[in-house]
Amino acid sequence: MSISAYRELRPAYGFDEVAIVPGSVTVNPELTNVRFALGEFTFEIPILAAALDSVTDPGFAAEMGRRGGLAVMNLEGLQFRYDDPQAAITEITQAGQDEAAAIIQKLYAAPLREELIGRRIGAAKEGGGVCAVSCTPANTKRLAPIAVDAGVDIFVVQSTVTTARHISRSLRGLIFEELCENIRVPVLVGNTVTFAAGKELMETGISGLLVGVGPGAICTSREVLGVGVPQVSATIEIAAARDQYYRESGRYVPIITDGGMRNGGDICKALAAGADAVMLGSAFARTEEAPAKGTSWGMSTGHAELPRGTRITVGVDTTLDRLLFGPTSKTDGTENLVGAIRTCMGVCGAQTIGELHEAEMVVAPSIKTEGKVYQLSR
Amino acid sequence: MSISAYRELRPAYGFDEVAIVPGSVTVNPELTNVRFALGEFTFEIPILAAALDSVTDPGFAAEMGRRGGLAVMNLEGLQFRYDDPQAAITEITQAGQDEAAAIIQKLYAAPLREELIGRRIGAAKEGGGVCAVSCTPANTKRLAPIAVDAGVDIFVVQSTVTTARHISRSLRGLIFEELCENIRVPVLVGNTVTFAAGKELMETGISGLLVGVGPGAICTSREVLGVGVPQVSATIEIAAARDQYYRESGRYVPIITDGGMRNGGDICKALAAGADAVMLGSAFARTEEAPAKGTSWGMSTGHAELPRGTRITVGVDTTLDRLLFGPTSKTDGTENLVGAIRTCMGVCGAQTIGELHEAEMVVAPSIKTEGKVYQLSR
Amino acid sequence: MSISAYRELRPAYGFDEVAIVPGSVTVNPELTNVRFALGEFTFEIPILAAALDSVTDPGFAAEMGRRGGLAVMNLEGLQFRYDDPQAAITEITQAGQDEAAAIIQKLYAAPLREELIGRRIGAAKEGGGVCAVSCTPANTKRLAPIAVDAGVDIFVVQSTVTTARHISRSLRGLIFEELCENIRVPVLVGNTVTFAAGKELMETGISGLLVGVGPGAICTSREVLGVGVPQVSATIEIAAARDQYYRESGRYVPIITDGGMRNGGDICKALAAGADAVMLGSAFARTEEAPAKGTSWGMSTGHAELPRGTRITVGVDTTLDRLLFGPTSKTDGTENLVGAIRTCMGVCGAQTIGELHEAEMVVAPSIKTEGKVYQLSR
Amino acid sequence: MSISAYRELRPAYGFDEVAIVPGSVTVNPELTNVRFALGEFTFEIPILAAALDSVTDPGFAAEMGRRGGLAVMNLEGLQFRYDDPQAAITEITQAGQDEAAAIIQKLYAAPLREELIGRRIGAAKEGGGVCAVSCTPANTKRLAPIAVDAGVDIFVVQSTVTTARHISRSLRGLIFEELCENIRVPVLVGNTVTFAAGKELMETGISGLLVGVGPGAICTSREVLGVGVPQVSATIEIAAARDQYYRESGRYVPIITDGGMRNGGDICKALAAGADAVMLGSAFARTEEAPAKGTSWGMSTGHAELPRGTRITVGVDTTLDRLLFGPTSKTDGTENLVGAIRTCMGVCGAQTIGELHEAEMVVAPSIKTEGKVYQLSR
Repeated sequence: MSISAYRELRPAYGFDEVAIVPGSVTVNPELTNVRFALGEFTFEIPILAAALDSVTDPGFAAEMGRRGGLAVMNLEGLQFRYDDPQAAITEITQAGQDEAAAIIQKLYAAPLREELIGRRIGAAKEGGGVCAVSCTPANTKRLAPIAVDAGVDIFVVQSTVTTARHISRSLRGLIFEELCENIRVPVLVGNTVTFAAGKELMETGISGLLVGVGPGAICTSREVLGVGVPQVSATIEIAAARDQYYRESGRYVPIITDGGMRNGGDICKALAAGADAVMLGSAFARTEEAPAKGTSWGMSTGHAELPRGTRITVGVDTTLDRLLFGPTSKTDGTENLVGAIRTCMGVCGAQTIGELHEAEMVVAPSIKTEGKVYQLSR
Repeated sequence: MSISAYRELRPAYGFDEVAIVPGSVTVNPELTNVRFALGEFTFEIPILAAALDSVTDPGFAAEMGRRGGLAVMNLEGLQFRYDDPQAAITEITQAGQDEAAAIIQKLYAAPLREELIGRRIGAAKEGGGVCAVSCTPANTKRLAPIAVDAGVDIFVVQSTVTTARHISRSLRGLIFEELCENIRVPVLVGNTVTFAAGKELMETGISGLLVGVGPGAICTSREVLGVGVPQVSATIEIAAARDQYYRESGRYVPIITDGGMRNGGDICKALAAGADAVMLGSAFARTEEAPAKGTSWGMSTGHAELPRGTRITVGVDTTLDRLLFGPTSKTDGTENLVGAIRTCMGVCGAQTIGELHEAEMVVAPSIKTEGKVYQLSR
Repeated sequence: MSISAYRELRPAYGFDEVAIVPGSVTVNPELTNVRFALGEFTFEIPILAAALDSVTDPGFAAEMGRRGGLAVMNLEGLQFRYDDPQAAITEITQAGQDEAAAIIQKLYAAPLREELIGRRIGAAKEGGGVCAVSCTPANTKRLAPIAVDAGVDIFVVQSTVTTARHISRSLRGLIFEELCENIRVPVLVGNTVTFAAGKELMETGISGLLVGVGPGAICTSREVLGVGVPQVSATIEIAAARDQYYRESGRYVPIITDGGMRNGGDICKALAAGADAVMLGSAFARTEEAPAKGTSWGMSTGHAELPRGTRITVGVDTTLDRLLFGPTSKTDGTENLVGAIRTCMGVCGAQTIGELHEAEMVVAPSIKTEGKVYQLSR
Repeated sequence: MSISAYRELRPAYGFDEVAIVPGSVTVNPELTNVRFALGEFTFEIPILAAALDSVTDPGFAAEMGRRGGLAVMNLEGLQFRYDDPQAAITEITQAGQDEAAAIIQKLYAAPLREELIGRRIGAAKEGGGVCAVSCTPANTKRLAPIAVDAGVDIFVVQSTVTTARHISRSLRGLIFEELCENIRVPVLVGNTVTFAAGKELMETGISGLLVGVGPGAICTSREVLGVGVPQVSATIEIAAARDQYYRESGRYVPIITDGGMRNGGDICKALAAGADAVMLGSAFARTEEAPAKGTSWGMSTGHAELPRGTRITVGVDTTLDRLLFGPTSKTDGTENLVGAIRTCMGVCGAQTIGELHEAEMVVAPSIKTEGKVYQLSR
């Protein structure tokens, strides 16, 4: 008898296993529209920077805002624990690999200082852009009102896996319906990967959903917990939940694929799989504007007893402008990400990202093994 | 015509091919219950140490007992052949790789000494814990009564593949029904990987079943014999047999996935696949408490004519406490295994291991190729 | 619920994933016919050289013609921008890998010089062979008439993805029906990979179709755009479109698989998948006759803002004669490509390439992992 | 639409993709019967040595006969072209890798000398064993009668792909019905991989069939021609043809899987897939008794214009006795192959090879990626 007779194991796909199929119509890239709407805000580009201390400090957030994008600050990160967060960042970046995780654990054990919230949010908004902060469910009730009072525009609630129903010892946990009612700003929630959990979260009234458990370069959830769903399948599933919820409610809740994208090709696949935007960490850590000088680490790296993330070195090899808009001489898809999205939309005949959701994808062998026998010349 | 028209080859999955999908409800890890019941015994943790001479000597068994777990001694191992087994262990650990297999063959050719049985069992029980020994079917009739008289609490009958029906020249082989009736202690039998063989064994009255043929780090059954079933599929199948037998008989026979798990993620996958507990070898060989100082070898490595196992070096990089309970700064899932199980149960919304059996799993590309392009910094 | 319930991801195969199954009848290779017909032309061999400046200059085109084949010149390449194109080629081949892409971008920014068109076409036809040039859709309206007046025999319109319907700002883009009517020579169009797009192109009256998006050694479309379909599946699909169009119209439009083939085995698989001929780039770059001395780069490598191709080093290790016809002592399929096609046809019982289309193929594990455990001796 | 809607590509499996599932009954290995019957001959072991000059010279054939096995001599090999074939062998083994193929081509261009046939066959039969020679279809009509007159016991007709119907220029090719009638010895034919071709060959009256196109360590048919079927699927298919032919005719034609097996595990998989015996090349080349001192090359390596095989170095690391019967201290399945077959039969509950055909197999991830994270100690 087949194993599947005992229990179904459905296949799930990551970026390396799929490819986008060109369309029967093509469009000039310059005619494409890549805007992304979240609540009342519209961003010029569908790329967000993740709430990593290695990427988003107030200065970086302001730079992203100037370019029409959005960078999220980690409300439980170093910026909100230290007067001089850059010193803490430097301590991490200069640590040996063996001690890095322990140093990160120590630095994130310092207390959160509420008086820093207004200062950092103010600095991030200096460029005139939209300001977003991210917080775990456990601290949201306490910190969200303070952040909103300090002028935050978008509030992100984020943990490894977030659901609308959480069982804990506390008498009354975070209830998203209440949060959305109580604070006046759009609430973005994550991370999630399944239809049922995603749809339940949308039904609480949130404004957007982050997709992805386990895929990022800094994340080791698969090794530590065995938990994770490859990003293409996770995005397809949450996109299906979004579309189903839209049919039922008339409300469109955009979804943002978060983690695991290394180049323009991966980003295009996430969008073709159904994402309205993507959130990147390691890619932004490669820019001169990022504070951690080419290293990165995850939000779960600081967990006191069971860290699930590593410090990685990505190097500094680009600027925010070249990364997003080019022009570039790099041929590996690591610069001009917006240009890549537009060109992909062109060959798929999509004038909007919504139309790109209709592109066909195939399960394809990894590009690492397909037709690449010759070495680059030196 | 399709090959499958000629003969069905059903797919089977190992740890690297699957991932656990988070649930629609989440639970605080501290609310989870990870206990494991076997016969009349209840253990605080669902992790057993394998009957390897590189792992379980009487001292190690006592230490596991103090922590609420169970370590099995090899009743045909060096402890029961030598007055000074540590000298034999040292001879193995210090051998060159080329001669290691031959030295192991030589050392395991020494006679079993029944007078040592009581001595080792007594030492193992000094910590007040439960004592278990493992024996091959061929020696079980002779040695089981002696071990039970010496106070052993659980008797394990184990060979590469064990079935309820074995054809041999001897007039009358081992009959599990008789064994279970004759000795007063729970009988744990293994290894097995198929529904039919597993259910037949349960019907003999045994108290538990070991799952796994061929997967461990020290095992070369796949190379030598071509035989083996990847652990996730084997566990799913034996779990289905357990559930079917429970429906028919009302008796719940717990199953223990044995071999091939390298980190918390693999353990969580085995439990999500249906295991009630797991048995580890190489992981325990990494502890300071293990007698072989960071090397390990298998029970079949000593086979005189066709050894099916190698001596491997795993190094000593942890303690029993850190391995099981943390806290840890390691981010690769190799410490705080119980914490990993609890956290996995949390994101799956499972309060017991029985509920974790309901978690969904997907077939997913290996984490080795998914999103890991950046190197660790040095 | 299965992912496929949300969205279908069909499997697609490249050369490494498939193998050809021998037939129930075999044929002596000397009895096979490998001719390829395009429009009114018939070529002795079903192998074309790609429109790469690293491969086809007028001299190379003449040499291919002498051997009964066809080499296409890039009408927007260095030959048509410089009086001394070899100097530009040398500048590229001698650049360091880091600067190569930028130098290529600079050299291809020089203006196209219409007065060179006649000169190059004349030189290419000196051998008496058939002359073909390739042009992007954007420049086709302007340059095609000039090339035809200069004596070109076959006109190729080629971009990453070409469709019969393209949306652009210009009032009136390239319309293939008009092009085919206006110029008197066969029009070959590419590249395409899907049934619908391929059939629509055939319906415009073109004479042949190039198959392949993303597979070549010099192409990085998969990394940059996420776009591409593995060549075996792409060829199967376009062949189905060709056969369907033939049933409907009675007109047979040959298809040419372009890119990603590294040896005789890959070429045979393309033909068995349904191709009437193949187009090679990197393989020809390995010949002494090619102008770039063992390096190669793609048509998209010169893109000013988002290059999608790399310069690769293939080395010079053969001649045009040995590559195509042998004899050879190489055992890896990189020489005597026509001999390989004939031998493959023999074991498949195919006397024509059309009969080879009927050969069965299986999805098979990569030869890299199948039975190759021993190293070559040194 | 799915690719499979355009054309079916069925999956095919090699040794690395499958594993044997243990049975519900087990048998003591000493009770197993591994005999192999071919025509009127019965061999004690189901392992044949291939017709490679690197393996089977008359002395080796005699040694195999003494051990109850069969080694086939290449009737078009060096033994039948040179008075001193060992000198030619030495020339090959001492050549540099770059020139090896060319030297092999040169040495195999020497004429076949019919007067050597009797001498070699006589020497091979000195041990009292059964003598077999292998010949290509083109030379069979001329050489088979001579060999039979010289006392050969079994005649093998072998080419890359052999079918019952071959189209050639010669008025009248080899007809197997006639060959079987004309010579008095069993005819073994190969190689073949498909149901239809295999069944047609059986219907000509032959006594046995060799299975396998493309899998061996020395074979590069997949690279050169794209042709090949992985051995497990090929064996399953030919076994189905054998069983179907047996049901129709009452005549059992044994099949021999030839090529690609590297260890006991692979051999056991071939037998479980349906083979009655296996033919090995590289494994025997590793013995002290083989004439080429640890190198090997294929029958097609000497092809004058399109060689499809390489010279490989396997090293000399065993003897014929240890290879076949052990005992061994090697734990990787490369010695005691007969012991491995018996042990595999034991865990599958098979007392004969015919019963082993009933063993279940699963598609399983490669052992290379399953559970092998620790390095061997040094």
